[in-house]
Amino acid sequence: VREVRVYLAGPEVFLPNAREMLDRKIALTRAAGLIPVSPGDLAIPDTPTKKLKGLAISAIDEQLMRSADAIIANLTPFRGIHADTGTCYELGFMCALGKAAYAYTNVAANHFDRTAALYDGAITLDAAGRPRALDGLAVEDFDMIDNLMMHGGIESRGGAVVVGNAPAEAIHTDLAAFARVLTLAAEVLLKS
Amino acid sequence: VREVRVYLAGPEVFLPNAREMLDRKIALTRAAGLIPVSPGDLAIPDTPTKKLKGLAISAIDEQLMRSADAIIANLTPFRGIHADTGTCYELGFMCALGKAAYAYTNVAANHFDRTAALYDGAITLDAAGRPRALDGLAVEDFDMIDNLMMHGGIESRGGAVVVGNAPAEAIHTDLAAFARVLTLAAEVLLKS
Repeated sequence: VREVRVYLAGPEVFLPNAREMLDRKIALTRAAGLIPVSPGDLAIPDTPTKKLKGLAISAIDEQLMRSADAIIANLTPFRGIHADTGTCYELGFMCALGKAAYAYTNVAANHFDRTAALYDGAITLDAAGRPRALDGLAVEDFDMIDNLMMHGGIESRGGAVVVGNAPAEAIHTDLAAFARVLTLAAEVLLKS
Repeated sequence: VREVRVYLAGPEVFLPNAREMLDRKIALTRAAGLIPVSPGDLAIPDTPTKKLKGLAISAIDEQLMRSADAIIANLTPFRGIHADTGTCYELGFMCALGKAAYAYTNVAANHFDRTAALYDGAITLDAAGRPRALDGLAVEDFDMIDNLMMHGGIESRGGAVVVGNAPAEAIHTDLAAFARVLTLAAEVLLKS
């Protein structure tokens, strides 16, 4: 049997029920025949400063990523219209290493729609036909779930992006989209 | 003379004066003795769909990154309290490839302070002494400018993070912090 290690990236570590959520994702990953690699798998050493603690966690998570064959990134918007920035870093990290990359979001509205909503829909086309907000900033419109580097990085590597539609109160805890992307990933990764 | 190529990551591409801003960063980079590699350096092919255009830009930017020896990432908050997510992906990408990594922000308030402000300062310590917002989400408090993966990824590689303090109306156009990090990077990269 092939052993495929999958790094489970996402903002679950910030949730009030972080341990429970990570454990549910770990159990689903095992049930799909994959080996979960999860932030929190390694103990964080005691450090004399806050900064050194952050550096220690960063080093551990990079070590865990290197030990994995693939990433499944939870790109659900976190504290704003965009994915958790740490998860975006991790997705770029794994794509650069040539690991298999998958992602999901629990919000159905795509990047363009979420950005437009931030401006109450006041988006106009500039002379070049590019959508812009009233503050002059361009608005990405590529049928993607977040910035094109993330969605593009995954699809150009043959990975998949699954779009869920969780109720507002469950966008950080619903695991239906995660289960779907897990099935897709397992199908590919366990055969290759 | 050593030729060191530096990828200039940041949300400048979205600005109304994107070309001007990219050109100013390119000129400053050249003046520092480094070779700028800038999003927009390569032409984007015509594509039949929006999605394919996004994929084409993603592929070009990854190609540009691979051609560079280092990255300077503009992590100034963009449309919210966090850095541009595409820039975060790119920073992770370059760190994984073992490239030299530098960053700056034009906002002096750190990640903890910006997150606390999002909750009007209503942050309390949980039983484990971890700061949490009223919605239960943990708040990172590591004396860092954004999520620990970014700040940690840079510092653990010997890179530097420069914190500027631009006036509110100039946070996307002020280049003082960029010029400072450029000087630091050139000092290291041109000697190594």
